[in-house]
Amino acid sequence: MTTDIPTPTPEDKFSFGLWTVGWQARDPFGDATRPEMDTVHALEKLAELGAYGVNFHDDDVIPFGSDDATRQAIIDRFRKGLADTGLAVTTATTNLFTHPVFKSGAFTNNDRDVRRFALRKVMRNIDLAAELGAEVYVAWGGREGAEYGASQDTRVALDRMKEAFDLLGDYVTEQGYSMRFAIEPKPNEPRGDILLPTVGHALAFIERLERPEMVGVNPEIGHEEMAGVNAAAGYAQALWAGKLFHIDLNGQNGPKYDQDLRFGAGNVRGAFWVVDTLLAGGYDGPVHFDYKPARTEGEDGVWVSAAANMRNYLVLREKVKAFRADPEVQSALAAARVPELEVPTLADGEGWRELQAAELVDPDVLAARQGGFELLDQLALEHLYGVR
Amino acid sequence: MTTDIPTPTPEDKFSFGLWTVGWQARDPFGDATRPEMDTVHALEKLAELGAYGVNFHDDDVIPFGSDDATRQAIIDRFRKGLADTGLAVTTATTNLFTHPVFKSGAFTNNDRDVRRFALRKVMRNIDLAAELGAEVYVAWGGREGAEYGASQDTRVALDRMKEAFDLLGDYVTEQGYSMRFAIEPKPNEPRGDILLPTVGHALAFIERLERPEMVGVNPEIGHEEMAGVNAAAGYAQALWAGKLFHIDLNGQNGPKYDQDLRFGAGNVRGAFWVVDTLLAGGYDGPVHFDYKPARTEGEDGVWVSAAANMRNYLVLREKVKAFRADPEVQSALAAARVPELEVPTLADGEGWRELQAAELVDPDVLAARQGGFELLDQLALEHLYGVR
Amino acid sequence: MTTDIPTPTPEDKFSFGLWTVGWQARDPFGDATRPEMDTVHALEKLAELGAYGVNFHDDDVIPFGSDDATRQAIIDRFRKGLADTGLAVTTATTNLFTHPVFKSGAFTNNDRDVRRFALRKVMRNIDLAAELGAEVYVAWGGREGAEYGASQDTRVALDRMKEAFDLLGDYVTEQGYSMRFAIEPKPNEPRGDILLPTVGHALAFIERLERPEMVGVNPEIGHEEMAGVNAAAGYAQALWAGKLFHIDLNGQNGPKYDQDLRFGAGNVRGAFWVVDTLLAGGYDGPVHFDYKPARTEGEDGVWVSAAANMRNYLVLREKVKAFRADPEVQSALAAARVPELEVPTLADGEGWRELQAAELVDPDVLAARQGGFELLDQLALEHLYGVR
Amino acid sequence: MTTDIPTPTPEDKFSFGLWTVGWQARDPFGDATRPEMDTVHALEKLAELGAYGVNFHDDDVIPFGSDDATRQAIIDRFRKGLADTGLAVTTATTNLFTHPVFKSGAFTNNDRDVRRFALRKVMRNIDLAAELGAEVYVAWGGREGAEYGASQDTRVALDRMKEAFDLLGDYVTEQGYSMRFAIEPKPNEPRGDILLPTVGHALAFIERLERPEMVGVNPEIGHEEMAGVNAAAGYAQALWAGKLFHIDLNGQNGPKYDQDLRFGAGNVRGAFWVVDTLLAGGYDGPVHFDYKPARTEGEDGVWVSAAANMRNYLVLREKVKAFRADPEVQSALAAARVPELEVPTLADGEGWRELQAAELVDPDVLAARQGGFELLDQLALEHLYGVR
Repeated sequence: MTTDIPTPTPEDKFSFGLWTVGWQARDPFGDATRPEMDTVHALEKLAELGAYGVNFHDDDVIPFGSDDATRQAIIDRFRKGLADTGLAVTTATTNLFTHPVFKSGAFTNNDRDVRRFALRKVMRNIDLAAELGAEVYVAWGGREGAEYGASQDTRVALDRMKEAFDLLGDYVTEQGYSMRFAIEPKPNEPRGDILLPTVGHALAFIERLERPEMVGVNPEIGHEEMAGVNAAAGYAQALWAGKLFHIDLNGQNGPKYDQDLRFGAGNVRGAFWVVDTLLAGGYDGPVHFDYKPARTEGEDGVWVSAAANMRNYLVLREKVKAFRADPEVQSALAAARVPELEVPTLADGEGWRELQAAELVDPDVLAARQGGFELLDQLALEHLYGVR
Repeated sequence: MTTDIPTPTPEDKFSFGLWTVGWQARDPFGDATRPEMDTVHALEKLAELGAYGVNFHDDDVIPFGSDDATRQAIIDRFRKGLADTGLAVTTATTNLFTHPVFKSGAFTNNDRDVRRFALRKVMRNIDLAAELGAEVYVAWGGREGAEYGASQDTRVALDRMKEAFDLLGDYVTEQGYSMRFAIEPKPNEPRGDILLPTVGHALAFIERLERPEMVGVNPEIGHEEMAGVNAAAGYAQALWAGKLFHIDLNGQNGPKYDQDLRFGAGNVRGAFWVVDTLLAGGYDGPVHFDYKPARTEGEDGVWVSAAANMRNYLVLREKVKAFRADPEVQSALAAARVPELEVPTLADGEGWRELQAAELVDPDVLAARQGGFELLDQLALEHLYGVR
Repeated sequence: MTTDIPTPTPEDKFSFGLWTVGWQARDPFGDATRPEMDTVHALEKLAELGAYGVNFHDDDVIPFGSDDATRQAIIDRFRKGLADTGLAVTTATTNLFTHPVFKSGAFTNNDRDVRRFALRKVMRNIDLAAELGAEVYVAWGGREGAEYGASQDTRVALDRMKEAFDLLGDYVTEQGYSMRFAIEPKPNEPRGDILLPTVGHALAFIERLERPEMVGVNPEIGHEEMAGVNAAAGYAQALWAGKLFHIDLNGQNGPKYDQDLRFGAGNVRGAFWVVDTLLAGGYDGPVHFDYKPARTEGEDGVWVSAAANMRNYLVLREKVKAFRADPEVQSALAAARVPELEVPTLADGEGWRELQAAELVDPDVLAARQGGFELLDQLALEHLYGVR
Repeated sequence: MTTDIPTPTPEDKFSFGLWTVGWQARDPFGDATRPEMDTVHALEKLAELGAYGVNFHDDDVIPFGSDDATRQAIIDRFRKGLADTGLAVTTATTNLFTHPVFKSGAFTNNDRDVRRFALRKVMRNIDLAAELGAEVYVAWGGREGAEYGASQDTRVALDRMKEAFDLLGDYVTEQGYSMRFAIEPKPNEPRGDILLPTVGHALAFIERLERPEMVGVNPEIGHEEMAGVNAAAGYAQALWAGKLFHIDLNGQNGPKYDQDLRFGAGNVRGAFWVVDTLLAGGYDGPVHFDYKPARTEGEDGVWVSAAANMRNYLVLREKVKAFRADPEVQSALAAARVPELEVPTLADGEGWRELQAAELVDPDVLAARQGGFELLDQLALEHLYGVR
């Protein structure tokens, strides 16, 4: 195992939400522990650490309710910051959760007036996102959902969710923007149950839209792990469906509140397999971190953790490559028949009739074949540990 | 609240897996506590209790590896049992998990010979299922998955899963059977992570099949709750997608091993909302119980629990109807604007341009509108308690 | 089943934290949706609904950092509110979590200056609590813990925790207060892992204190259920140890963020068994609700939910009594040999020698005895449903 | 990071349950995939791999119900196997879960006859354990518990549990054995809820025994993680209480069925902190692995996984030592004030009066101090990765 871990460069396409390093660390039981962070200062520090891009909620940059002149002045300063640092805006998104207006949801609020307000808020920020060059528009519907079974009819809520994405698809298309949407699933928090709780639910939903080709997913490791499902498998299913439009990397320790730990600092074996899945699947979008520096930290800890996200990704990338290149691994993969899964079950030209007529191996013979997965996994673990 | 709970009749379409009442109560730490149950005895008792139908895995009825003559004799006796009791075979399924041959999966086993064996085992039982009149063929891929990240390439596994369902779709179509498939998702157990872990993942997968119209889902309450997601919301999304082909009702107490408690004996509020969702969504298939009588019980407890599943469904059905018919509930629903969610966000003829030009209500005014969900939920709870 | 549910009276000893009905509904993703609630208004409303008492964190009543004159004026007004409404102060507690000073803990903060500050803050509020007649002082150490393994040495943290309780025990004793302490466990949130995560851990810790008799536990249903353990069993173990000094009732739906739903609105079967455990165990302290009215609600929803907590307790209390009085239940209990568990395993005068010499029943005979638990549980469920 | 990982030797005190490598891989959904393993063969292979000792349930070595002659012949052969291989018997335990007689529990079965049978089964195996030199007798009460709230009165069950341990304490004492007991907690599976679900509950229970000094705990990593609590913190609290009499190391991926993965193959960060806790706490008992080789494996996989447990422990032990010796870590620990937690909160001679009179640092000054935990944790993670 080499310890020559490369340092982050823009070619690695690392990006950060402005709300991550800028998080003031207010939590359900405590007040902010860090002062507001100037957006341009954040851009400068991220660029210095080797990031490629940023993304933002409208309200991260422009306070909710700003008048047009204030808004324009802020945007101008932000654009200058981007130009000065060379950072790209990779994606953008709308804050549809902080203001009390969204307390019962945005696109699926029972209150039609709120839904209309939400859609207009999104359109306005899509214009800014397009202007700043964002190619993906992330949609996290964190307030869409309920605590109680009668609060919302789920099927009707899905109708309204579809109506919203259909409208936004029209908007982006007719405006000539080259933007695609990425839905970010989450099982719960801040709502008792959130609509489209996992990657699977979001992928299924997308198929019923008028423009399914414009909409994909943005799986977050922590969100999938809050549902106790395997995050890497979720990324893989999204890739299989041609829908992995964006990724949110971070860390989580199983089903509990949303921890948003820095990438690597939760389920580290899971992180290894996520990186393996991304590399194998040819994901080439931004490598985005959606994490929160611990509330215990001052600004030093913010930048330590920001840098650590990127470093951990690079460490794992090198390890995954070394694992896949290791001849002993390749031989263990072959012994475990992993490559054989690529061979279709039916031979060329075979259909069910031929399969019914075929000579099959006796099941007891098949049952006696050894899996070989303990060896394979131990090799992976030793690459993770850096002891091979 | 009335205590006039109807007794089960075949019109209620209650069905049981033969493996439920026939479970011998072997668990990972203990030997069987109950003797084998004769299949015809099970049919007789279920009919007596008011059930409508049964379903089975091939191996539940015909021991794995039986020769053709034995098989035919068993089938003849089973058919006679059905005729004598008037029970229908509502669905059937294949046991692709008990025999060691399936230790690393069936349709997605790395070992191609196992996959071929599995497909042929399914086809053989489909013939029997068709002969017995089953209209739904359930597919629970409990062994498809892995404990370790390198054991199986998830994307390739999805290719093989698709290949299997495409082949089986051809088979059923070309044989002229009127059968549809229902995939039953589960997040884990007996594998560390199972492919298609939730209703959402299964619904998304189905969209990539050659004959998506032939394949739906069979959500099990306990399986969804093992992933910490809301079971009723999963049923609702399946209904929304037109894919609720079958249901598996039972009980579970959150993320832990698969408890398969009798229906009602787990998350009882969740059960209420599942029944509400089924009634509201017009589900009219069999009301199937996939549960296990507790291992502590003898045969008396088996029939007590079998009857209790049906009774609890009827109790909840009456409660749901009373809840929906209650004028105070209707007024609380209106106050909470639940019916307003059915009003499209856009007015007739409105598009994004018109929405952009529309006069909107001030967000602070909207934020001040009260949710009204605590009242609504308390009314539901009081119906559940039987105190209104 | 009667629907004659009594209305709450002070004899029921229902109490509320001022922070519950007064919660402004700020959550990790959203701003307050409700205005600050005047403390005296809260007292008036709670008294009107039938409550017996209240409790409070120091900062709930007196803003952090108030000068002495302001403090006294606030206290005087609060005392008058209590006198006017007749409400008791049942317990009090210290807010050791909101201010950033506590971001890394209070009694177990690595920073000794913070620990000293925390202890003095507690002593000051103990004086007020004693003055107001509180008999229990609750200690929730929500910030004691860590996200990361190296942040804190757990054994040393337990030393400091012990030091704090030993000091406070001295203080209360030497001041002549008749107050006892109740530790409130929680597994996580707002820290990744909290010290003393369950009732069990807290009970074990208490045994190592200098004055163990002064310290008990305050189990919260939701906190125990966040760890996936059975809340009623936790209350029972606390009663068995003579340590159930206070209770926090509310609702939760399994391992996820701390939901603090109103009592009854989570795991309703679990709630039934908690009430059964409290009644059977002779708990006679305040019946305290530590919940949060949903963030979607305005003030109407606050009072609906406050009243619903009490009503649900009374509903369940009546049901538990009816269950225990039901002759069919008693016969099912006998069949399930539940009363036999009270018979010691050894006969009077028997020791291991006599047991070794005794004639035992053959294990296969014993194994054939039926459990009878499905029937018993179905009877309980039918009492819960109100259909017997 | 060195890759010079030592090979296991008896000095490392690694031990295995015979039921681990000998597991035939029967699970709730599948039949055995491996043949029975000869006990002496297991001893030979474990010795060859570098193990120090073994432990066993009575029924692992001597089939349930063997007559005395058979029993003696088996024991003689087992003793010879031990002598030939030089393996120690580190601990022993009783199987109180497999036979149907224990379907509703052993020490706390409602059926008194079963309780008597269970106690005698334990005493008989304690004699054998003493004869073979075991110093710790493990007690896993996996069947003590319930699925339903009325099945068992938890307080009475604790009385019976206490009675059992009190009797066994008498027995061991009066027989002059130098053996101690270690209770192994588990939250659930095979029962819906198990009595003494976590380390905390077991530690608290022990304090109420007649001979608390004879009884400690045997925490299993996977069992604690099934409750979503931090396993290392549980080990630390057991050490703090002087009660860490034995350890069960393995792997688990969060709240789900009991996975019993090989050590290292679950939550790898958690495993690092467990090893750190054991080293820091001076634990010097056997390093025991309670795992199951994956059901997919043949005998090759059994020995690969057995060896991997030991190797992973040694890898982590080296990493933990390197982490603790790293000057940059020490400086980060100091910056995070970790050593300051060892300084008592009160100065020498200080009591509450002096603390009340002391000059304290302003809370806003304290709040501004930075935590420094992100840096510290990143250093730990880099040691785990082997990149420092």
